[in-house]
Amino acid sequence: MRNSNRQWILKKRPVGDIAPGDLELVEQPIPVPGPGQILVRTLYLSLDPTNRIWMSDMDQYMPPVEIGEVMRGGTLGVVEQSNNPDFQPGDIVNAFSGWQEYVVAGGAQKLAKGPVPLPAYISVLGATGATAYFGLLDLGKPKAGETVVVSAAAGAVGSIVGQIAKLKGCRVVGFAGSDAKCRHVVEHYGFDACINYKTQDIRAALRRECPNGIDIDFENAGGEILAAVLEQINLKARIVLCGMISQYNADVPPPGPPLTNILMKRARIEGFIIIDYLPRFAEFAAEMGPWLAQGKIKYDTTVVKGIENALSSLNLLFTGGNTGKLLVQVSEER
Amino acid sequence: MRNSNRQWILKKRPVGDIAPGDLELVEQPIPVPGPGQILVRTLYLSLDPTNRIWMSDMDQYMPPVEIGEVMRGGTLGVVEQSNNPDFQPGDIVNAFSGWQEYVVAGGAQKLAKGPVPLPAYISVLGATGATAYFGLLDLGKPKAGETVVVSAAAGAVGSIVGQIAKLKGCRVVGFAGSDAKCRHVVEHYGFDACINYKTQDIRAALRRECPNGIDIDFENAGGEILAAVLEQINLKARIVLCGMISQYNADVPPPGPPLTNILMKRARIEGFIIIDYLPRFAEFAAEMGPWLAQGKIKYDTTVVKGIENALSSLNLLFTGGNTGKLLVQVSEER
Repeated sequence: MRNSNRQWILKKRPVGDIAPGDLELVEQPIPVPGPGQILVRTLYLSLDPTNRIWMSDMDQYMPPVEIGEVMRGGTLGVVEQSNNPDFQPGDIVNAFSGWQEYVVAGGAQKLAKGPVPLPAYISVLGATGATAYFGLLDLGKPKAGETVVVSAAAGAVGSIVGQIAKLKGCRVVGFAGSDAKCRHVVEHYGFDACINYKTQDIRAALRRECPNGIDIDFENAGGEILAAVLEQINLKARIVLCGMISQYNADVPPPGPPLTNILMKRARIEGFIIIDYLPRFAEFAAEMGPWLAQGKIKYDTTVVKGIENALSSLNLLFTGGNTGKLLVQVSEER
Repeated sequence: MRNSNRQWILKKRPVGDIAPGDLELVEQPIPVPGPGQILVRTLYLSLDPTNRIWMSDMDQYMPPVEIGEVMRGGTLGVVEQSNNPDFQPGDIVNAFSGWQEYVVAGGAQKLAKGPVPLPAYISVLGATGATAYFGLLDLGKPKAGETVVVSAAAGAVGSIVGQIAKLKGCRVVGFAGSDAKCRHVVEHYGFDACINYKTQDIRAALRRECPNGIDIDFENAGGEILAAVLEQINLKARIVLCGMISQYNADVPPPGPPLTNILMKRARIEGFIIIDYLPRFAEFAAEMGPWLAQGKIKYDTTVVKGIENALSSLNLLFTGGNTGKLLVQVSEER
């Protein structure tokens, strides 16, 4: 074991797109656990659109990462050393230890590992899957026969949303940024249709694919897609506002879509962030576990190796370069 | 009785502000009730921002008024002749007979008149009051100690919303378009504060008057007021989108406010139109009646005489020329 803990430090707040100098990769000695503490080695780091929000100092749902701090991020790790009787070396833990190879902590949430590969626990069985599950079911309240549209349908959350909506008997139409992704969304995830928003006339495509109008929009993109969707919503439609990745790199929040139809259709736009649902996580796991085991839900992971590639990989989310969950494998499971 | 029924006919759809030639006042013979029918003489005609929506052919919550049709509007009338055993001449009815002096109908909702003046039944005890009541209570769900902001606070709906919110123990801050209106809103309706949006810095005034942030926004205006409010909402804020009068004269719906804070604060924007609550009207009347009788709710009416003045009076709503409910007295109660 090299005595080196590589960390990504936030050096300055990005202006517009994230620039290479906004974060810096530094080396620190591996920290030493004190009495009652554990040393956790990071296995997988979750890369998410919300990382960009945390880098900014906008008003947000958690405090922003401060300049000079290790970049925040969800992780899976393995206990390397333990001075805590509740933990053994080799225990897998669900942490929130950020963009670094090691962390010392008083404890962490132990993972009850099941039959699926480890990355699933930071993806479809983690906050990503829970976002899809609670956002769609709790806010969207899908009923059989309704039409659900999902932006970023080839993404980690969107792909799961669409599959759950199909399990609930809905017609599901996705948006993705390439024909290859659209094919994958339909053929692999089982969406009824997928619209390439970069090449198709969004409004015409929505009219064609949603002949009965739109009842639920699971919104990950914002911007022009959201505006087009709102023009075709049904009475009492539910817009689950889970993300607006199209505008996270904007210096000033752009205007939103016209709200006329929200009024006329007595529809609802509701913001959703998974942290509010952590107390209900078991509910999700109890249903998603069997769905996975029965092959009812499929998921993809794009795994990038090496923490040194975290920053350049994060940009894949904004350029549409990944399919499914984007992870950095920081070290080997062994 | 002159044999003349004056009617306002929609001649063409307004472009931008309503122009004098968009509607035409014509004279028709008074219609004759057939077997089983009644002849109703209009007493009061309700003028509402939604009249402008009905004149347009935008996608809306009812069919638009067709070109050549009598302009739509809520009315109170009196039965003049009856061939229907359920109605007697002199019965007061709640109708929806539009901008005309007489109408023949199979029947109409009879008004159980109480101790308040007749105009109240087409105002604070009618759809206007019910809009305030259900919009605030059912969608806004105010809790004691919360802060409620109300745009168009001197208007028919806004003035009632604020008073109900005060009855529920909230801090209530209004917006109105003149210092005189703001004084009236505070001194007469009992709001805690009222911001003149034409002369004050909206954001600074909101920070001053809502030191604990905003929990509920009862939105009648839209546009810049809504954008400013969203910047200062609290976690789980409720935006009751009841109207957007600032944009009804726009040819193309303008963009909405940035939705960033709806996401970050897990807040909700929900469209509200009173027609969905007609089945629950009795619930409202049972609570509003006693509030009025006990002097807990005050209301104002601006009464314009003569159906010939309906069109020019409607524009008062868009120029801020009225306080409280705007009515046309079409004929005398006698």
